[in-house]
Amino acid sequence: MRTAFYISDGTALTAEAFGHALLSMFPIAVEHKTLPFIDSEEKAQRVCRLIQQAQAEDGEAPLIFHTFVNTELKQKITSCGGVSYDFLDKFVGPLAAELGVEAQPKTHRTHGIHQDYSFRIDAINYTLDHDDGKKLNKLSEADIILIGVSRTGKTPTSLYLALQYGIKAANYPITDDDDFESLRLPAALKPHRHKLFGLTLEPDRLHEIRSKRREGSRYASLQQCRFELAEVEKLYRREAVPFIDSTRFSVEEIAAKILAETNLKRHRY
Amino acid sequence: MRTAFYISDGTALTAEAFGHALLSMFPIAVEHKTLPFIDSEEKAQRVCRLIQQAQAEDGEAPLIFHTFVNTELKQKITSCGGVSYDFLDKFVGPLAAELGVEAQPKTHRTHGIHQDYSFRIDAINYTLDHDDGKKLNKLSEADIILIGVSRTGKTPTSLYLALQYGIKAANYPITDDDDFESLRLPAALKPHRHKLFGLTLEPDRLHEIRSKRREGSRYASLQQCRFELAEVEKLYRREAVPFIDSTRFSVEEIAAKILAETNLKRHRY
Repeated sequence: MRTAFYISDGTALTAEAFGHALLSMFPIAVEHKTLPFIDSEEKAQRVCRLIQQAQAEDGEAPLIFHTFVNTELKQKITSCGGVSYDFLDKFVGPLAAELGVEAQPKTHRTHGIHQDYSFRIDAINYTLDHDDGKKLNKLSEADIILIGVSRTGKTPTSLYLALQYGIKAANYPITDDDDFESLRLPAALKPHRHKLFGLTLEPDRLHEIRSKRREGSRYASLQQCRFELAEVEKLYRREAVPFIDSTRFSVEEIAAKILAETNLKRHRY
Repeated sequence: MRTAFYISDGTALTAEAFGHALLSMFPIAVEHKTLPFIDSEEKAQRVCRLIQQAQAEDGEAPLIFHTFVNTELKQKITSCGGVSYDFLDKFVGPLAAELGVEAQPKTHRTHGIHQDYSFRIDAINYTLDHDDGKKLNKLSEADIILIGVSRTGKTPTSLYLALQYGIKAANYPITDDDDFESLRLPAALKPHRHKLFGLTLEPDRLHEIRSKRREGSRYASLQQCRFELAEVEKLYRREAVPFIDSTRFSVEEIAAKILAETNLKRHRY
């Protein structure tokens, strides 16, 4: 199997994003290795040996996706074997020409600390405090309130919105404490109707997820899942709450779809 | 101000990573606009108008970072003005030649749902359950246990590790319930010593963070912050717990540093 290296004098998150996007277009299996903070001659030397070792073991040249700001270290890494892909190199020149500004590379700028840092931490704290309907007193501060029946992905989606985008995302469960047959919007949510966003799933998938928690229970039964989802979707439609079926989506995709549909203001870029 | 568009028929996360990495090298202010899921002729038409509008308003060509799988939509987007940067185009060919395999582009593969999806959700649930020393009964399942005094970033870091990498990250506070003058490793943590990782901050920064919570309190005083941090760092050294000072780092950087130092196995790539 080929080895793909993601190497940088920073976090290597950009090198990963770049390499993964390219490799995902090919139907091949790859062994991934991320090597962040390669910021000294000595560390670069060690990386060199890893590249050579991979080449010897795989019998094929490793693929090297890198984003170095320090050009000497870059030189060192690209000269020790493997095939290098340097996207900064290809694009910085044309972009500088278009902008009429010279590049001023600094490490740690892409994924470095931002001024809006405390905004993000506040969002995470808010989201944790307002997970699963825990607190209701500050719903007016929420940027968005996710709703849905148990196990439809409210918590991971809320946390992702907070961590990635600094969005204060509360979430509130539609539970079977409520009478599902005559499902209404919980009173606590009514004043915040414009911030609601619903999640739903296909019944088979919810049944599978709930069965992992409480195998054989009424809660996990396909019949109950089917019933709850049908009722909650009726509720969404009746109350004009936008919603998505997240069965085939990752947390990243659900979050991106919610942002696209709601025009929510992101606090980070 | 220039407008930068990040456009894709998928989440546009890769287009963002690509564009941000490049733009972060230039000392210019940019207005960012992400347009994900542009997967129909009609949506592409709307995007075209947005690009033309930005060009008219800015008086400068918008920068367009895109990652389309659908080539017709890509054509449409790149032909309506602005300056396009297409990194897939530049690298797919060389990579195909190296691999000896044709590219098989599919949307939603890079940030799509993975087989390891439930692993990630399990990690998030585990981390939430084991936040701030809440539960101790399953610490043996943790991949890592972050420790530190109050407000040194344990919770955001744990959540990031869980969400991004599927790592079960517990965290445990070193509090002043304990006698700081003779600080010891809490008994609950002793059996898991090999999984501990410490966080610390500069006293000024901790003072600033705590003051936002409880202005003027002893807890937030610079003296108390200085004292707690000095004692906890002594503890880390005495017990050989690896640790980092996260004062100048973002959550992404802290997480990347922890992964690099511990060789923790990531469950997602």
